[in-house]
Amino acid sequence: MPDLARLSVNQICVLPQWTLPQAIDGLARHGVAAISVWREKLAEIGVAEARARLDGAGLKVSGLCFAGLISAADRAEAAAARDDVRRAIDEAAAIGAPCLVFLSGGVDPRDKDLAATRARVLDGLAQLAPHARGAGVVVALEPLHPMACATRSVLTTLKLANDWCDALGAEDVFGIAVDTYVTWWDPDLAGEIARAGKRIRAFHVSDWLLDTRDLRVDRGMPGDGVIDLPAIRRMVEAAGYTGHVEVEILSARDWWTRDPDEVVRTIKQRYATAV
Amino acid sequence: MPDLARLSVNQICVLPQWTLPQAIDGLARHGVAAISVWREKLAEIGVAEARARLDGAGLKVSGLCFAGLISAADRAEAAAARDDVRRAIDEAAAIGAPCLVFLSGGVDPRDKDLAATRARVLDGLAQLAPHARGAGVVVALEPLHPMACATRSVLTTLKLANDWCDALGAEDVFGIAVDTYVTWWDPDLAGEIARAGKRIRAFHVSDWLLDTRDLRVDRGMPGDGVIDLPAIRRMVEAAGYTGHVEVEILSARDWWTRDPDEVVRTIKQRYATAV
Repeated sequence: MPDLARLSVNQICVLPQWTLPQAIDGLARHGVAAISVWREKLAEIGVAEARARLDGAGLKVSGLCFAGLISAADRAEAAAARDDVRRAIDEAAAIGAPCLVFLSGGVDPRDKDLAATRARVLDGLAQLAPHARGAGVVVALEPLHPMACATRSVLTTLKLANDWCDALGAEDVFGIAVDTYVTWWDPDLAGEIARAGKRIRAFHVSDWLLDTRDLRVDRGMPGDGVIDLPAIRRMVEAAGYTGHVEVEILSARDWWTRDPDEVVRTIKQRYATAV
Repeated sequence: MPDLARLSVNQICVLPQWTLPQAIDGLARHGVAAISVWREKLAEIGVAEARARLDGAGLKVSGLCFAGLISAADRAEAAAARDDVRRAIDEAAAIGAPCLVFLSGGVDPRDKDLAATRARVLDGLAQLAPHARGAGVVVALEPLHPMACATRSVLTTLKLANDWCDALGAEDVFGIAVDTYVTWWDPDLAGEIARAGKRIRAFHVSDWLLDTRDLRVDRGMPGDGVIDLPAIRRMVEAAGYTGHVEVEILSARDWWTRDPDEVVRTIKQRYATAV
């Protein structure tokens, strides 16, 4: 039996199968140490009940997924999106999540201007800093795969996340989430992970399938793809990260269709052998 | 009527619809200045007939697509792949193509070692230099989108292409192909295009569709997506590029199903308004 003390399972792995209460009970039953909570499922029961159930099950929270998408060129839209991030920060604090995973949002098709879009997101993040500080929640900037640049994240590289952290100058409030699936291809990966150092507040693990069929929901179980996951884990830990190792698999054609107990059993086994 | 003197149409835009003779005749009939030839179609008629037909139609060749995939960990496989590149170099010379588009190949799933894979490709390129020099053909290194890293290209960024050109130290033999579709997301794009400078031997244009459904063959017609194509063209031209602007659209669900004359007419119109 592997040591599961650092394993976190992101709720997205069993999102269609389990409610949040079912996921909390299920993961605790399997001896998993922590969960990363998905906001849409949290909304179904509210933060008070979620917190009570998490505490009752003795399950830690590694993060809250996700908020952001503040990249719109329209000022009112962007302001509304920032307000939603503030609500998410409060939710994270209420359930004891150490960090909120932040996705920037994609390029605005109305102006197609990547540089301007990135500048808007960076400015929006600066505006969110006081609220995050007040709540004691770290906003973990997660670069997504460049194939998400049009729709969900103009933050496409770890280097840019580090550049933004440098520019924000608020290491107590802003961190970085490193995800193997979205960063493994990056020639600068080792250098930028080392540069991130203590900024790394979350480490997400899934695998890239050779026959990937979808740009968002076709991630592989660790060991089923081509990513050298142990090598990236070593980089992250050499940079000083000692937190949870969070398995996060979006899989419409495979794992979302399976018995959730089988999914969790497989995650535990692969965590021991392929991560 | 726009000036078509710099427009090249990559044969892939009408690959299922037209043979090479049909494509040569069709593009010449539409007043397009140049074609980029696809190897599988070239093989159907051979280099001698192709050259005669190109010359007869007065159509220039902007490049030959593609060769490479030399990334295998197996020595015999990699050697065979390099031999195929040498054949492609000879084909490029025979049809008067100034450059051969080179794709590195993906990560070898047998070792999952990206650093080692990249080192093998770089070493393989160095071995190809004498043959390319003898043939007078430039090998244009084309970084592909990071979503192709597992299958077709461990060369995932323009920065790495520039690094490889630095390492190879043979500017007469190795160049770079800049493709808007595979590089537009890159925060370092402007800087690395400027760095590439005269290395840029080909400029490929297509658009990123908001509802992209496939990782390879769902590219958009210029103007139908979210890429600021004129901005990237300005970068490339500011770097000193004066060659053809090559429209290269792989589109299984849309343009490959249409009347090829409609495809070419649309390319000409969009070249004038959206590139």
